[in-house]
Amino acid sequence: MPVLKQIGQRFLKKKPLKGLVVAACMHITKETGALMTTLMAGGARVYLAASNPLSTQPGVVKDLAKYGVTVFHRDYDTDIKRLAGTRPHLIMDDGGDLTWDLTNAPDSWRKNLIGGMEETTTGVVRLRALARGDMLKFPMIAVNDTPTKRLFDNVYGTGQSTMEAIVMATNVLMAGKCVVVAGYGHCGAGVTARAKGMGARVIVTEVDPRKALQAHMNGYEVMTMRRAALEGDVFVTVTGDINVITQEHMMLMKDGAVVANAGHFDVEIDIKNVPAHVTLLAEGRLVNLAAGRGHPPAVMDMSFSNQALCAEWLANQDDTFPFRHPRIYDVPEDIDEYVAREKLKALNICIDTLTDEQRQYLNNFK
Amino acid sequence: MPVLKQIGQRFLKKKPLKGLVVAACMHITKETGALMTTLMAGGARVYLAASNPLSTQPGVVKDLAKYGVTVFHRDYDTDIKRLAGTRPHLIMDDGGDLTWDLTNAPDSWRKNLIGGMEETTTGVVRLRALARGDMLKFPMIAVNDTPTKRLFDNVYGTGQSTMEAIVMATNVLMAGKCVVVAGYGHCGAGVTARAKGMGARVIVTEVDPRKALQAHMNGYEVMTMRRAALEGDVFVTVTGDINVITQEHMMLMKDGAVVANAGHFDVEIDIKNVPAHVTLLAEGRLVNLAAGRGHPPAVMDMSFSNQALCAEWLANQDDTFPFRHPRIYDVPEDIDEYVAREKLKALNICIDTLTDEQRQYLNNFK
Amino acid sequence: MPVLKQIGQRFLKKKPLKGLVVAACMHITKETGALMTTLMAGGARVYLAASNPLSTQPGVVKDLAKYGVTVFHRDYDTDIKRLAGTRPHLIMDDGGDLTWDLTNAPDSWRKNLIGGMEETTTGVVRLRALARGDMLKFPMIAVNDTPTKRLFDNVYGTGQSTMEAIVMATNVLMAGKCVVVAGYGHCGAGVTARAKGMGARVIVTEVDPRKALQAHMNGYEVMTMRRAALEGDVFVTVTGDINVITQEHMMLMKDGAVVANAGHFDVEIDIKNVPAHVTLLAEGRLVNLAAGRGHPPAVMDMSFSNQALCAEWLANQDDTFPFRHPRIYDVPEDIDEYVAREKLKALNICIDTLTDEQRQYLNNFK
Amino acid sequence: MPVLKQIGQRFLKKKPLKGLVVAACMHITKETGALMTTLMAGGARVYLAASNPLSTQPGVVKDLAKYGVTVFHRDYDTDIKRLAGTRPHLIMDDGGDLTWDLTNAPDSWRKNLIGGMEETTTGVVRLRALARGDMLKFPMIAVNDTPTKRLFDNVYGTGQSTMEAIVMATNVLMAGKCVVVAGYGHCGAGVTARAKGMGARVIVTEVDPRKALQAHMNGYEVMTMRRAALEGDVFVTVTGDINVITQEHMMLMKDGAVVANAGHFDVEIDIKNVPAHVTLLAEGRLVNLAAGRGHPPAVMDMSFSNQALCAEWLANQDDTFPFRHPRIYDVPEDIDEYVAREKLKALNICIDTLTDEQRQYLNNFK
Repeated sequence: MPVLKQIGQRFLKKKPLKGLVVAACMHITKETGALMTTLMAGGARVYLAASNPLSTQPGVVKDLAKYGVTVFHRDYDTDIKRLAGTRPHLIMDDGGDLTWDLTNAPDSWRKNLIGGMEETTTGVVRLRALARGDMLKFPMIAVNDTPTKRLFDNVYGTGQSTMEAIVMATNVLMAGKCVVVAGYGHCGAGVTARAKGMGARVIVTEVDPRKALQAHMNGYEVMTMRRAALEGDVFVTVTGDINVITQEHMMLMKDGAVVANAGHFDVEIDIKNVPAHVTLLAEGRLVNLAAGRGHPPAVMDMSFSNQALCAEWLANQDDTFPFRHPRIYDVPEDIDEYVAREKLKALNICIDTLTDEQRQYLNNFK
Repeated sequence: MPVLKQIGQRFLKKKPLKGLVVAACMHITKETGALMTTLMAGGARVYLAASNPLSTQPGVVKDLAKYGVTVFHRDYDTDIKRLAGTRPHLIMDDGGDLTWDLTNAPDSWRKNLIGGMEETTTGVVRLRALARGDMLKFPMIAVNDTPTKRLFDNVYGTGQSTMEAIVMATNVLMAGKCVVVAGYGHCGAGVTARAKGMGARVIVTEVDPRKALQAHMNGYEVMTMRRAALEGDVFVTVTGDINVITQEHMMLMKDGAVVANAGHFDVEIDIKNVPAHVTLLAEGRLVNLAAGRGHPPAVMDMSFSNQALCAEWLANQDDTFPFRHPRIYDVPEDIDEYVAREKLKALNICIDTLTDEQRQYLNNFK
Repeated sequence: MPVLKQIGQRFLKKKPLKGLVVAACMHITKETGALMTTLMAGGARVYLAASNPLSTQPGVVKDLAKYGVTVFHRDYDTDIKRLAGTRPHLIMDDGGDLTWDLTNAPDSWRKNLIGGMEETTTGVVRLRALARGDMLKFPMIAVNDTPTKRLFDNVYGTGQSTMEAIVMATNVLMAGKCVVVAGYGHCGAGVTARAKGMGARVIVTEVDPRKALQAHMNGYEVMTMRRAALEGDVFVTVTGDINVITQEHMMLMKDGAVVANAGHFDVEIDIKNVPAHVTLLAEGRLVNLAAGRGHPPAVMDMSFSNQALCAEWLANQDDTFPFRHPRIYDVPEDIDEYVAREKLKALNICIDTLTDEQRQYLNNFK
Repeated sequence: MPVLKQIGQRFLKKKPLKGLVVAACMHITKETGALMTTLMAGGARVYLAASNPLSTQPGVVKDLAKYGVTVFHRDYDTDIKRLAGTRPHLIMDDGGDLTWDLTNAPDSWRKNLIGGMEETTTGVVRLRALARGDMLKFPMIAVNDTPTKRLFDNVYGTGQSTMEAIVMATNVLMAGKCVVVAGYGHCGAGVTARAKGMGARVIVTEVDPRKALQAHMNGYEVMTMRRAALEGDVFVTVTGDINVITQEHMMLMKDGAVVANAGHFDVEIDIKNVPAHVTLLAEGRLVNLAAGRGHPPAVMDMSFSNQALCAEWLANQDDTFPFRHPRIYDVPEDIDEYVAREKLKALNICIDTLTDEQRQYLNNFK
């Protein structure tokens, strides 16, 4: 993770997070470990809880503890509560549960709070629901939605690690298999691309007509889940919604059909009613983290560099800044572009730059 | 074009454009012909000028004249002026020249003007420059940017028709060739996908680090044009900017290199200084229209359905509506979604619909 | 066509075909023109007839006549007869009709005949039938089957030019279309790859279980033509057999379905019984030649270099050589490899060479 | 493995291998276990040794022992010797070592021997060397070369499992990486297709000009290993030859380059001289078996069905049959086709059958 590393080196000198408490609810992986130590290098005190118990890498817990990070990892609900209780200045959330707890906590728990960052599509969807209901009590940055996160982590990270995890768990030969992907957002598009790249026939189900049309134009078959249930060998949900694959759908599936979830919560498949002839992977939890190796460091580098730089950006806001008004913010454009530029540098890729003449042309109408 | 056809049938009954003058500057093709007759079915009086003389299909000019459309097609500059002089209620622009002329015309020429629509990326870039300079004098809808246009017409339409036109003009076997695509926006992404699909090795040049990174992650090589110039067999510009391929670049190219432009204006390549060992296609004009068959009707159906429905939407605004304030508007969400939905219907594709439970889940935080 | 050109330069010096008559039945295209002049450079007298009247390029006929080639191009049957009557030493056939006529001609017509070359899959299938029936009267080299022809011309040439011709003839947007390809030999595999590369959903029909399985493993749907008829938007036959798409199949097809043949003869589709709701392209003849631009020179370079070198090889055989025994011969291994090596050179591609140690390892068991 | 299962059921009734000793040197995996029990169902006494100690699945050893198979699994060289000493009627080899030992054994060890089968490309290359040197002492069937093995197991099995194993071992994000594949045979073509399907840029190195040209036409870059060494992030050898990646090559590689072997023996990379900045996976052994999950059962089904049916076919030969002459045999056409047909049935895929008219057309010249 070269970009994050470089940020860490600057943090170590400048201490932009000096004296701040950061409460983070994230998958406890090696990559998260690197983010936490970056924050500490910047001067923060860091508390961490696992956003998903199945994805926790035990070695990382130990290493972080040694390094001075307080890691809560007993019981999910209690851990989140304890995190919320640290009176954080900044939060990093992954799915929205910490945000929810802090929203419903006594005012005093939020007295230091400047704002926070949300890492996932699911979390941002929930933030939007909160904002619509006028219930958002502090500013949150939708890290998930920024191009250098959404267009990379969600597409390539989820795409590769999901298909990888399914193969690791089943040793299915994907060539010739029919893979049904529910949801054609960024993650879904990543999963379909990898499935196709492994030689599978791919079917997409969607509820949004524009995404459905896009899947169709990309050469995938588009149909209802009820019809797809009859065709598929492997099913992957990646929608952010509940009950996308129901018991009724599973009853229709072939003998030996494999069903997996790559969405944030284990609600997309009716996991309580899986018929005997169908194999559910990883208990319906995020399959790439629970049954696979999670996102490769290469994409986490970009996502987590955005996280670290957004933490710094929030820490730099002064009291008069209207920022404290609870709103959902985008990652500042220059942070996003900086991450991209540094990543290219790390990859040794040179690109063109606009000449003055070109820049002027783009800025003039005539 | 089944969606446009269906809109035409409704227009014929409802006459939503009754009494309005529409001035359109577009490529005069069969598909544009269908859009013009749809507007007339809606009650409009229609004036049309060619946005590009090389792309005009002569049969269409005749047919439209017979049908009652006034077609200007002598000299580009004069034609645009005459269009602007029709005191239109609505305009349809393709590249921004009509908008520019009307902006600089006497106020009286704009007295009836409700607003207009812009079809192309280039035109929208110019509109934005105009708006930044506070020079926008009437509202314009960025049809180009709406998902059912941008994600389809630009990607699949430009992608296929550009590669098609190059093969028609050269009979080059793309398998094994090195194709250099300058610009990785929607059009550029479409061109690269088709080039790769034909068995080419593809290099991308960009000035935007995020797009460059995306091209890299999609498996393309990314480098500067100066380096790519040494590698490529075929070059396509699709940037919306000037002098993307310079004389210096062309001097570096292989013997027999083919250079083509798929951007709106013939400014992307230094067409006055093409060395003898390089073949420039279609004089550097939009290669898919000038040397090929243009966009397939299947994508124009969506783009032009948006155009027709936006015309109706503008016509329905009353005087008190703040809309007349000169701004760049998005295509209303419901129009865009309607076009997608009707297109799916025309394709006989059924998709899932959210259950009440699912909709509620998405709208609630907890 | 750099490889053929280089052969031509050597022929000009060495005159390996001095005094020989070559009778060729081929598509009269620019590329064939180059082959004919190469043979003349080698000292041959050349007679040429069109193997398909629809594919003849009139300019080429004139140019060749000027150059001294006798071109027959009145009536197909008569032309072939006249060709056979030239008492050729060598023949070049494309489909097998010249071979058939010469087989059934009086012995005297074959008195000079050393042997010939066959260019197409269809022609080789017919040669095999002839050989099985003990009716082969002179040696023929199956140029079609040699790797540098079959794996390139048939796959990339037919693949690109077929899809190209269909788009030129219809302006169909391939993205999202369902393309049904009958036959998954080399040509069929090429057509499916290009269709997929253009964003189509691809269905394959086959009669050979191994090819069917291969298509399945490559991610294509495999089914009977009767079922595929209900699904397809575009149909391409490339089987070498008759009545692959019958009237019954076409009755099942969607309104507006497009049907085309990329096999050698116009027998694969029941062209006499095409229902009104189905569009047949190019009267069922070889669509890439009749409605498109034919094979790109890049692949013809390899096919025709094989032809020229096989002509030289036959000419070099002496009377005692058992070769005159009528058999179907492969292109000699060293000719095929030479063509590949020269092609790589022309493309500026360097490859590794076996070290002595490596060569020895491959030649030893232990 | 539905096809093998069905064969097993017939074997159980017919006992075609009654009284015969089978000596097999294979990877001891679950799939091999199924093949061994199939042979026992057919009446054979079975001895098994591991062809690669790293790939042995310990559970399978126990299960097979319980079932009555004698498994040798101490020391590779001793195990092979003991296998050879069982005086087998039939052998199944994987790489050629058992064949070699039996060739050099006293005549008495071969007195019962009818013949055997070879599973791998490497083994068949060695058999050919043996035959060229007139050293082949018993007939061997090149199972590896039969279409239903070579076109499936080698392409899809090796392709998926190799890339899978590399990701499992490294968690590298393949999107955007440069993958260098040495060797473009069936296995190599499979690996490149999967690498490309994961979003990698792919470079191929070859020594055969025709394969090099094919890789080029498929859109891959082709160059020497010395040049590729500078470009690659991940290297895979799959050539069957020695020292394809030398110390010199590795010295040129980037920091953190990953090197893996997917060829049969651990001789393709100079494993004794790997510099510190390069990561060698699985000690240079067959990466998909040593670091991954091996070939998916779906392809082993076809390979092992061929093995079982060839064993039966050999057992059915009588003494007068010229078969005992030591030669390398192809899998009989009807066995290969039977396997394909049964596989399609198991996949529920129906294909077309030739009509009488079609069959006749193919068999007639005119």
